[in-house]
Amino acid sequence: MEKVVYLDNNATTMVAPKVFDAMKPYFCELYGNPSSMHEFGGQVAHAVADARESVKDLLGASDSSEIVFTGSGSESANMAIKGILEANKNKKHIITTKIEHPCVLNVYKYYEKLGYDVTYLDVDNQGNLDMNQLNESVNEDTALVSIMMANNETGVILPVEKAASIVKKKNPKTKVFVDAVQAAGKIPIDVKNTDIDLMGIAGHKIHAPKGVGALYIKRGTLLPALIIGGHQERGKRAGTENVTHIVGLGEAAREALSNMDYELTKVKALRDKLENGILKSVYNARVNGSTYNRVPNTTNIGFQYIEGELILLHLSDLGICASSGSACTSGSLEPSHVLKSMGVPFTALHGSIRFSLSRFTTEEEIDYALKVIPDVIFKLNKISPYQRELRDLEEKHK
Amino acid sequence: MEKVVYLDNNATTMVAPKVFDAMKPYFCELYGNPSSMHEFGGQVAHAVADARESVKDLLGASDSSEIVFTGSGSESANMAIKGILEANKNKKHIITTKIEHPCVLNVYKYYEKLGYDVTYLDVDNQGNLDMNQLNESVNEDTALVSIMMANNETGVILPVEKAASIVKKKNPKTKVFVDAVQAAGKIPIDVKNTDIDLMGIAGHKIHAPKGVGALYIKRGTLLPALIIGGHQERGKRAGTENVTHIVGLGEAAREALSNMDYELTKVKALRDKLENGILKSVYNARVNGSTYNRVPNTTNIGFQYIEGELILLHLSDLGICASSGSACTSGSLEPSHVLKSMGVPFTALHGSIRFSLSRFTTEEEIDYALKVIPDVIFKLNKISPYQRELRDLEEKHK
Repeated sequence: MEKVVYLDNNATTMVAPKVFDAMKPYFCELYGNPSSMHEFGGQVAHAVADARESVKDLLGASDSSEIVFTGSGSESANMAIKGILEANKNKKHIITTKIEHPCVLNVYKYYEKLGYDVTYLDVDNQGNLDMNQLNESVNEDTALVSIMMANNETGVILPVEKAASIVKKKNPKTKVFVDAVQAAGKIPIDVKNTDIDLMGIAGHKIHAPKGVGALYIKRGTLLPALIIGGHQERGKRAGTENVTHIVGLGEAAREALSNMDYELTKVKALRDKLENGILKSVYNARVNGSTYNRVPNTTNIGFQYIEGELILLHLSDLGICASSGSACTSGSLEPSHVLKSMGVPFTALHGSIRFSLSRFTTEEEIDYALKVIPDVIFKLNKISPYQRELRDLEEKHK
Repeated sequence: MEKVVYLDNNATTMVAPKVFDAMKPYFCELYGNPSSMHEFGGQVAHAVADARESVKDLLGASDSSEIVFTGSGSESANMAIKGILEANKNKKHIITTKIEHPCVLNVYKYYEKLGYDVTYLDVDNQGNLDMNQLNESVNEDTALVSIMMANNETGVILPVEKAASIVKKKNPKTKVFVDAVQAAGKIPIDVKNTDIDLMGIAGHKIHAPKGVGALYIKRGTLLPALIIGGHQERGKRAGTENVTHIVGLGEAAREALSNMDYELTKVKALRDKLENGILKSVYNARVNGSTYNRVPNTTNIGFQYIEGELILLHLSDLGICASSGSACTSGSLEPSHVLKSMGVPFTALHGSIRFSLSRFTTEEEIDYALKVIPDVIFKLNKISPYQRELRDLEEKHK
């Protein structure tokens, strides 16, 4: 088939047509440098300021001066973590969870190699955070706690506001960074009334283009720049602004806010339809992670006793895009560190597929997916070496 | 007037229409993640690979694996400098020139504060580098030498190949970074046959959009990532690739190569026409920097005894975009560190304007500029407090 049924929106999203429309004038017409003295650059600076206001609104920040534009969610996380540790060089303990994205986890591993004491918090089999362990871990020497708002693979929402309060009660000087890349645009965020100091997002998860992100830095938080040079972003991030993408992120933020209800109802309904349909028809399917406490667009389904990469290739042939693990770890053939941390059994670990929808996903697409996915799975079940186990599951399912 | 005569191409350039055309499909149609397993993402990975090949060709690198895409020229410089110093922690001496862009100079100042011994090389009144001083400065402890290929304010070309050879003869282990942001696309580059280890460029100076850059890393050069996380860019720069901008940079690199002759002849002719026209009609104008050894698109003209900011505002009202200093330092009201380093007299320092053309600049635009610029200057001359000095210059000019 020619048509693409794109169920991989946690990997990246289509640029929304209205977002692209908003960006267009800034390529070949309004191409001035926002830092220039002339009015031709000045009008571009206004567009950047408008976008900053929109991102402020999406995150519920107090003031747009708390928003710095970056080149990606990864840069936001690196800037937050490296910056806080540079500003607090005497403190050598840092905390995060075992299920963070590589852009957090690998930075923590980097500091661990440099001699930092690192606590990696556990999650239970539903993907929920151990809050007692968090409470016990924070000490006088803790510089930073990083906790993601929603997991990219399972969609499970972590209680970051409560976590930040726990951290601050134990040590008011410990900084809290929240990776909200997979939460922004999917669930409401109101960072100003929380103990969160820093929050990162990525444009390309909310229908802005790839290559732009933002970092919320609560007013009064000392954060040295990761990229040093010119005075852009109030000296916090040098380099000529990515004007087109920043304008796109601003428009995407506005649209995400105005589509929040749709996301929480219609997108959720389509996700549930897909999930329930698969669970009903495929006897060796099970959901990974909590189904109660989850962003509305994501389901992670473990197809037991078969190989995820094979499932993906067959789905790709049928025009269906999905993922195993995250795109940022794909190609490694390592099973997902997120699912491993949740204790997903070995037999489902390798056959787990993430389906992630967007507000552009149609019911027709979900119907098509529900029509073809079971056949793919049954075909692969036939070549699985675990025939007895599969028969048992089939019996139980009846 | 409604029309904009854009003579500020060293600040940023218009995205070339063909570049924008090449980018368009990657917003709303081919929006897959290049790291994804499915073919929808795979075809995007091919586009990124093609762009890498083009940038390799523009710089004359040996292999496209030596090219890493970044978010800006500033990020390229930060990645190069910070990476080399991280990989050579035992060496504490670094060298650069006094006329570098802030994205190099301010990183050097950062390391100076951390206790590094920094040599800032002098330039003469033509903007030429003191090569003897370079030769004498390199020692056993020198980790890195950073020299720009063409100065952003004057366009003066520095002999970076020769400089790299001098460095390597003194200390083969010293790494050489070249900021080629203002040289790429304006003069031919063939990095593979040089002693240069690292070279940075920015897309938005060569008619690609703002927000993308590249860093050449000679094969075998150990360079840790600045942004840690996923496996993108062979682990050298995490974060989902800025696909649209990378595709744009690739197309812009191809076009820059095929327009090199035009740049070196027609753009140069227009620049010379502008420069000579101003020098002929405006008695208090002088060129800052060598006119022999300069990229073809740039002229920096000092209008003695008047204020540069005032000139820019008057020109802006007439639709002409130009700069004093670099856009990255604008707003600071500090006179240009480049011109100060060249010993430009105080009376010309504050009235120095950079005009920078592109292959999209037309003869009609230059004619218009030549028509209106003298009147602006003469009007401002009248309110200058230096009437006697101006009269002397007028007499001499006759």
